[in-house]
Amino acid sequence: MSGKITIALDAMGGDNAPSEICKGANSACKEFDDIEIILTGDTERIKSCLEPHPRIHIEHACEIIDPDEHPANAIRKKRDSSLRVAMEMVRRGDAQGCISAGSTGAIVAGGVLVVGRIEGIDRPALGVPIPSMDNIAFTLDVGATVRCKPENLLQFAQMGSIYSRKILGVPNPEVKLLSNGSEDIKGDDTVLAARELIESQGNLNFGGYIEGNEVLFGKADVVVCEGFNGNIALKLGEGLIQGLKQMLSEEVNKSLMAKAGMLMLYPAVKKLLARFSYEKYGGTPLLGVKGAVLKAHGRSKSPAIVSAISAARKFIAEDGITQINREITK
Amino acid sequence: MSGKITIALDAMGGDNAPSEICKGANSACKEFDDIEIILTGDTERIKSCLEPHPRIHIEHACEIIDPDEHPANAIRKKRDSSLRVAMEMVRRGDAQGCISAGSTGAIVAGGVLVVGRIEGIDRPALGVPIPSMDNIAFTLDVGATVRCKPENLLQFAQMGSIYSRKILGVPNPEVKLLSNGSEDIKGDDTVLAARELIESQGNLNFGGYIEGNEVLFGKADVVVCEGFNGNIALKLGEGLIQGLKQMLSEEVNKSLMAKAGMLMLYPAVKKLLARFSYEKYGGTPLLGVKGAVLKAHGRSKSPAIVSAISAARKFIAEDGITQINREITK
Repeated sequence: MSGKITIALDAMGGDNAPSEICKGANSACKEFDDIEIILTGDTERIKSCLEPHPRIHIEHACEIIDPDEHPANAIRKKRDSSLRVAMEMVRRGDAQGCISAGSTGAIVAGGVLVVGRIEGIDRPALGVPIPSMDNIAFTLDVGATVRCKPENLLQFAQMGSIYSRKILGVPNPEVKLLSNGSEDIKGDDTVLAARELIESQGNLNFGGYIEGNEVLFGKADVVVCEGFNGNIALKLGEGLIQGLKQMLSEEVNKSLMAKAGMLMLYPAVKKLLARFSYEKYGGTPLLGVKGAVLKAHGRSKSPAIVSAISAARKFIAEDGITQINREITK
Repeated sequence: MSGKITIALDAMGGDNAPSEICKGANSACKEFDDIEIILTGDTERIKSCLEPHPRIHIEHACEIIDPDEHPANAIRKKRDSSLRVAMEMVRRGDAQGCISAGSTGAIVAGGVLVVGRIEGIDRPALGVPIPSMDNIAFTLDVGATVRCKPENLLQFAQMGSIYSRKILGVPNPEVKLLSNGSEDIKGDDTVLAARELIESQGNLNFGGYIEGNEVLFGKADVVVCEGFNGNIALKLGEGLIQGLKQMLSEEVNKSLMAKAGMLMLYPAVKKLLARFSYEKYGGTPLLGVKGAVLKAHGRSKSPAIVSAISAARKFIAEDGITQINREITK
């Protein structure tokens, strides 16, 4: 089935570009025989680290978008940047999806300005699959749409439900709204109105509110929130895991017995941390745009890139865009 | 200095009332010779578990506010509840502060409706001292005021700064606003406007934005946010610590070596977790009301009650209310 699925891959985005991006492209082509990859970026630099492969192509782009640049300005002005060139390929239909480990803001801006929104979707959402106790809590939005209207949150719920079902394989995903308490009287005006709106739609498996402490305990398959809250909560969680690791290692270093204990415990700790590894869950999809646009982690090495390619491939194979279209126009 | 500081203590609030509350009152009176405690609640039940002490008194109250009740309704209707009676004592000046391990909502409602707001403060804030890498990040609001105006956030910044300086002992506390990124262009409308407002005041040590992942790394002494976000973030953090503990113990139980390792590591883990123990940091002050009103953790046992009493005592001794008054009327 060679060439069925074409993915544009920003070779210049992220901390380990272009070498780890190229390595990831190679590994993915070995793993999946139905994909073609177009690497966008500086041809010379890409060639210097790419193992040639018949299904990997290069599209030259001479500019790079810096993480510090104003996202929308950068997308508008740097027409020959590796990210914009990748997104143009999706817009023209030369690729069905694109992936970048570069600036999140620029990916969101490019998704809206270049790839374009799906008709009926007012705002896009970035969704993160958060591994919880016995499931994956697909959480959106974590930063694409800072503040939302109730209608936006309804659309996030619809898109999240499709992603959870089609890509993460949850048969009848339960959707909840992130709030400051589980009782009906809780919530701010936006969340209260969104709750009524989602309930009145009736075609979602909607479970009401979820509190911050329940996310990790398998209490919802899809967690819906405004980008501002989602972003703060996600980063807080990341910081907490990082902080606990650092504080524990400080404590462990104070005692020889603790050091020995840590060595014996290490395989279990490693397994635990692997559950939270971004390498496993294949990037953050930008839902609501006319293509499988995924943000890979900025620190991505080749396994994380393979994982993102795998998610994009699945999204394209399952025809995620048509699914969202159908749900929205219902 | 006997009898200088009088604290009303809701004997019936929390999971371990009244026995652990009474025990805490006894221990606190042994530790501090300048306090008087008035336990509010069912006299018979209190007497059955209280070790008599010349500086502990009982004020009878025959009702209890249930955690499931609508907070404001409960405060209005249950005039003879242990919580309302404690708050009435502060209102009348019979006590300078009160503490309850009962319903957070009812404590906030009682603080506003019974104790009353400090003149010039539009909304109260609940502040939590979050132990970070090398300092305490005093975070407010975590649930008293769901959505805020920029003016509310400015007042939270002012009150938080005073609490950090006077009660937590930070000489020149750096105040930051919780946001979805550290760059100036980030933030929602409320946070952007609050930032300008706080900067224009000029009398705070203001450091701009703080992201979720920085809170635990000593990047701010005071973290200001809307109650909705603060509540979600705080609960997410609590849930994450709880979830990690549970997942780790599941992994550990699969291997004998890991079990042995865990035993050897346990003292270090215990030390680490003790840093995050609510027993140490003395309850959550409700700032902005005319008295030292503190919420103790619902699961409080006697050491947590002692700790809350210690914080209330310090707040009263440092004349926290006058300090806030002075700052607000500047």
